[in-house]
Amino acid sequence: MKGALPVTPDDITAAHRRLHGVCHRTLLFTCSALDREAGARALLKGENFQRVGAFKLRGAYNFLAQLKPSERAKGVVAASSGNHGQGVARAARLFGCKATIVVPEDIVPAKKEAIEREGAEVIISGRTSDVRLAAAEKVSKETGAVFVHAFDHPWIVAGQGTAGKEMLEDAPFIDAILVPVGGGGLVAGVAVWAKSQNPRVRVYGVEPDTADGLRRSLEAGHPVKTEASASIADGLRPVAPGNVPFQICAALLDGVLTVTDAEIAESVRFLLSRAKVLVEPSGAAGLAALLFRKMPDPPATIATVLTGGNADFETLARILRKEI
Amino acid sequence: MKGALPVTPDDITAAHRRLHGVCHRTLLFTCSALDREAGARALLKGENFQRVGAFKLRGAYNFLAQLKPSERAKGVVAASSGNHGQGVARAARLFGCKATIVVPEDIVPAKKEAIEREGAEVIISGRTSDVRLAAAEKVSKETGAVFVHAFDHPWIVAGQGTAGKEMLEDAPFIDAILVPVGGGGLVAGVAVWAKSQNPRVRVYGVEPDTADGLRRSLEAGHPVKTEASASIADGLRPVAPGNVPFQICAALLDGVLTVTDAEIAESVRFLLSRAKVLVEPSGAAGLAALLFRKMPDPPATIATVLTGGNADFETLARILRKEI
Repeated sequence: MKGALPVTPDDITAAHRRLHGVCHRTLLFTCSALDREAGARALLKGENFQRVGAFKLRGAYNFLAQLKPSERAKGVVAASSGNHGQGVARAARLFGCKATIVVPEDIVPAKKEAIEREGAEVIISGRTSDVRLAAAEKVSKETGAVFVHAFDHPWIVAGQGTAGKEMLEDAPFIDAILVPVGGGGLVAGVAVWAKSQNPRVRVYGVEPDTADGLRRSLEAGHPVKTEASASIADGLRPVAPGNVPFQICAALLDGVLTVTDAEIAESVRFLLSRAKVLVEPSGAAGLAALLFRKMPDPPATIATVLTGGNADFETLARILRKEI
Repeated sequence: MKGALPVTPDDITAAHRRLHGVCHRTLLFTCSALDREAGARALLKGENFQRVGAFKLRGAYNFLAQLKPSERAKGVVAASSGNHGQGVARAARLFGCKATIVVPEDIVPAKKEAIEREGAEVIISGRTSDVRLAAAEKVSKETGAVFVHAFDHPWIVAGQGTAGKEMLEDAPFIDAILVPVGGGGLVAGVAVWAKSQNPRVRVYGVEPDTADGLRRSLEAGHPVKTEASASIADGLRPVAPGNVPFQICAALLDGVLTVTDAEIAESVRFLLSRAKVLVEPSGAAGLAALLFRKMPDPPATIATVLTGGNADFETLARILRKEI
């Protein structure tokens, strides 16, 4: 079964070598107040401290690094609610090629500005990922730019998996890992690495309860589309998991946990108040699963990825005032 | 001149030994976006990540550790706008003795709750530090509790100086250090250590422009009282620097810089947006001096202390919405 998966541990090792000097090896840190609430030793992988403020640079750079120079010369195009767009824009800048990023109408202003700071062209289109996908594919056809999917490609999954490699190198004693799920690229990459190192490490995806596409897909046995969600976790709202991540998740995942927007908001407040660290709502889903003890039979040491820190200040102000 | 100072580098070394295993050795970290704005390599000492969320535990614990058991048995009392109170309350809990903390009427709720979480008794009194001081001295006379000054004692200054020791151990190449000033305990301790290691390291205090007591005192040649300030940097509003810190600052400081509330607020936003790190307004004064290039003849490497992260969420929401 494992031999047939589209991403191997060797792919992740190769990706990690490509990312050396490009991505930060981010902190895996603790918070004693969180340990008390979670009833376990909690380890937090600080990808909110990653370059561009999210783990997405890992996959994007690993993808662009494997294109031929002649392909990169035509530019790249991506569809993204924000962080993947920043990752692709930064990777393109590092390789000196043009990037076009298709973003939703309701993108948070800080994310749009950050993409533009990287020198990429921004196109605004629709509110759901399938509308943006179509717009990006149109750009690709018209200009010859290479389409960089946010999660549904082995190179992207292998790049994101390097976060899991670092976590298990830093703390080989981890018993379980909780990973926020949008399209499933990160959780798939982390699962490939973790299970190859120690099959007893449990790996769970965590989704907003209103955007539980992976949970439903695993139940159905194939990727299924869900309705558009209005969750504050704007990065976790793809309408369906990717085929590549789905295949890996179906083979390796121990389960999918869900959290509410209120639990996510409380987790953002908790981390800011107790650890003085900012995580964006999408990046706090795994933390929320820890804080609200969503995991069955919790073991001694549970890790999660704080996937990003690019919070919109207006949304954050509402969270601080407990309006969310 | 130096031989006559009330705190020596040996006092700081001894304090550092006492604090081993009690205080975190906090990160000294960088932020490339800040380097660009500051026009220098900036190093940030993350005392917002310290236990109790501020550097104050260093001085408080160093003070309590030097009391006789018979003195500690009668309890301790402190007057504090918040963080010193948390430091004394935590140190008292670690030593198993009672703490009474006198706080101002306008204390931010999060700081009051945090003091109570440590098991200390809270007394609310007045809005300025001299009113609180009188109330604390009254408690001391009535109960025999030892008064723990927030800054005007050699043991407190030596404890705070350990932050400077760690900074220069981690980065011996630091050219200048900018330290937020309330009563002057931290800047005095840092100056004693830094100048003993390398007399060419420049050390500056940084004050809100509406609470520039140290600047005025150094000009006058003795500690002078200023009017009560309404600065958002609530921890930097003592009405006068302490005698012990003043004596050290007069001998060792290279100068005092001032920053506005608007500059402090922008610095809080900058750090949150670019580094995903929360610093409270009082803790951002040195950062503001960096960001707004307040230092004359800036050298290559400038460090500052992010002194605390215990921001009130209501104030923080206003800062995020640019209402401050």
